[in-house]
Amino acid sequence: MSDETVTVAHGSGAGKTREFIEDRICSRFADAGGDPDLAVGLGALDDGAVHDLGDQSVVVTTDSHVVSPLSFPGGDIGRLAVAGTVNDLAVMGATDPLSLTCSLVVEAGTSLDLLEEILDSMQAACEEAGCAITTGDTKVMGSGEIDGIVINTTGVGVLPRGEHVPDAGLSPGDKLVLSGPVGDHGITLLAEREGFDIDGDLTSDVAPINDIVDAALDTGTVTAMKDPTRGGLATALNEMVRKADIGATVDETAIPVRESVAAAGELLGIDPFDVANEGKVVFGVDAADAEAVVEAIRSTQRGSDAAVIGEVTADNAGRVVLDTGFGRRYLSEPEGEQLPRIC
Amino acid sequence: MSDETVTVAHGSGAGKTREFIEDRICSRFADAGGDPDLAVGLGALDDGAVHDLGDQSVVVTTDSHVVSPLSFPGGDIGRLAVAGTVNDLAVMGATDPLSLTCSLVVEAGTSLDLLEEILDSMQAACEEAGCAITTGDTKVMGSGEIDGIVINTTGVGVLPRGEHVPDAGLSPGDKLVLSGPVGDHGITLLAEREGFDIDGDLTSDVAPINDIVDAALDTGTVTAMKDPTRGGLATALNEMVRKADIGATVDETAIPVRESVAAAGELLGIDPFDVANEGKVVFGVDAADAEAVVEAIRSTQRGSDAAVIGEVTADNAGRVVLDTGFGRRYLSEPEGEQLPRIC
Repeated sequence: MSDETVTVAHGSGAGKTREFIEDRICSRFADAGGDPDLAVGLGALDDGAVHDLGDQSVVVTTDSHVVSPLSFPGGDIGRLAVAGTVNDLAVMGATDPLSLTCSLVVEAGTSLDLLEEILDSMQAACEEAGCAITTGDTKVMGSGEIDGIVINTTGVGVLPRGEHVPDAGLSPGDKLVLSGPVGDHGITLLAEREGFDIDGDLTSDVAPINDIVDAALDTGTVTAMKDPTRGGLATALNEMVRKADIGATVDETAIPVRESVAAAGELLGIDPFDVANEGKVVFGVDAADAEAVVEAIRSTQRGSDAAVIGEVTADNAGRVVLDTGFGRRYLSEPEGEQLPRIC
Repeated sequence: MSDETVTVAHGSGAGKTREFIEDRICSRFADAGGDPDLAVGLGALDDGAVHDLGDQSVVVTTDSHVVSPLSFPGGDIGRLAVAGTVNDLAVMGATDPLSLTCSLVVEAGTSLDLLEEILDSMQAACEEAGCAITTGDTKVMGSGEIDGIVINTTGVGVLPRGEHVPDAGLSPGDKLVLSGPVGDHGITLLAEREGFDIDGDLTSDVAPINDIVDAALDTGTVTAMKDPTRGGLATALNEMVRKADIGATVDETAIPVRESVAAAGELLGIDPFDVANEGKVVFGVDAADAEAVVEAIRSTQRGSDAAVIGEVTADNAGRVVLDTGFGRRYLSEPEGEQLPRIC
């Protein structure tokens, strides 16, 4: 017996979360990798599992959403719960969700009006994403036993193109494509909690982006995808290069960041690269297709700021080199916990 | 705007929960019944959704587990989370789970040893059920923001026999078969909370029972199935007859209840028919097959007390008549909230 306990930093999304999940959680479960029908299992630590089922491949992904506050500029926990799971399916290649579940845990004393607003927001996000809630569960905990509402959404989808796109598929020479500005969700939430919004123009980017993934997959060869949620762009890029055991060089000046987000990040002492996005994708794309993929993403509703932000290199394996315009440094993952309950 | 709030009774599992879920939750979501590939959707309020996928049918079911205390005689929240979802798949006919997810929400300050015990318990239950955790998610909430650990498990399964078994399929003349004694889980939990256990022999029945369902389906024509969890046998039977718009007569003396459970129920003022079971199934079975199905269930590890407990009738539509041996009364659903956080 030890007296170690779970800490808020275990949930940050960056390195400490990865260690916690690998060493303390996944290690307790049997490796089902021996199952020939399980193409991607727990050990891959990807955004979901992939099962072969007859001539179809079925993707399963799950997320419990604990965001605080429940409503924020640009969205609420309901919109987040739908977008988060639709996007996890999409970055596996399952852009047309078959089934979305809604499991609510609600604190006694929660306003029914608020609950209904959140459910309406889930339905609106489902309509944007072209999917439906098909089953669910509802539990009530006593007042003070849970802070507000927790929503689990689990998504099931098939792979319209037959193959899943892993987060580990980068090869040297691939271009890194980002679908839009980073930091919006994390900075907006933190500003909301701290009770300041410089000019009232901070807004979360929370949205389903399966259409962006469709546009990219229809246009060129995508070697890897990830949605940069907890731990932000910095964590997503580091995870992608570490898993592929290659390096990457990223051009800082090419990474879109909104002025309001940059300014608020400055004031709050938070780097927009380190915080959650809820409507963005990072792609590895075959170099020959990169410009065409960027153009295709720009033609979607939320992709107008898509850009090539860097490229994959054989050297610097496992590291992301950031070219700041003045020099170079490693882009490292955020340490510890800056933003609990961000998603 | 109203000032109505969610109450603990909304989570009881009986009538008030049904109204809450139908009127306040499902009504906010679009009816996806128009989707030709969705064989069973949200509107059915069954134990899960059924999707047609090529020549396969895929069942999806979800549950968030909020049980308190986290460990109790006979199990813990980990065993409950696996058994609960495996059993919901099974009573839809999906007795061989394809995928089980594990989404943890953990309070900061929770002992890592306790967390690991619970995960080991999940793994052991997976082995009993013949399935594996294939994907997951972990969130940490601050100390005091959630009481302990909440676990969502979502299950995906296919239908090995092609057809799902609805909970609404009863016909007059069908026999009602129960797989074993009722009340064990609910009475054990309540005794544990109240700090009394008469002779230390109260034990939750929490267990995966997909083998029991397999035995029944392999033996005879099963017209309907349900696992009597929240709200107990009384709620499950009432739901089955209401959905099929028929009646049922149940022989109280034929319903197995352990002596220790009956005695504790007496002291606690709780009817064992009204509280959650976590390892039982109620079947509607074609009368000609009923005895053979009971025998088949009795041959399984947890089915030795299986019994025919009643039959479905054309009269008394929507009601369950309990023959007590001395007379007859309606078996009604429990009112209000007796046992919060029972599962």
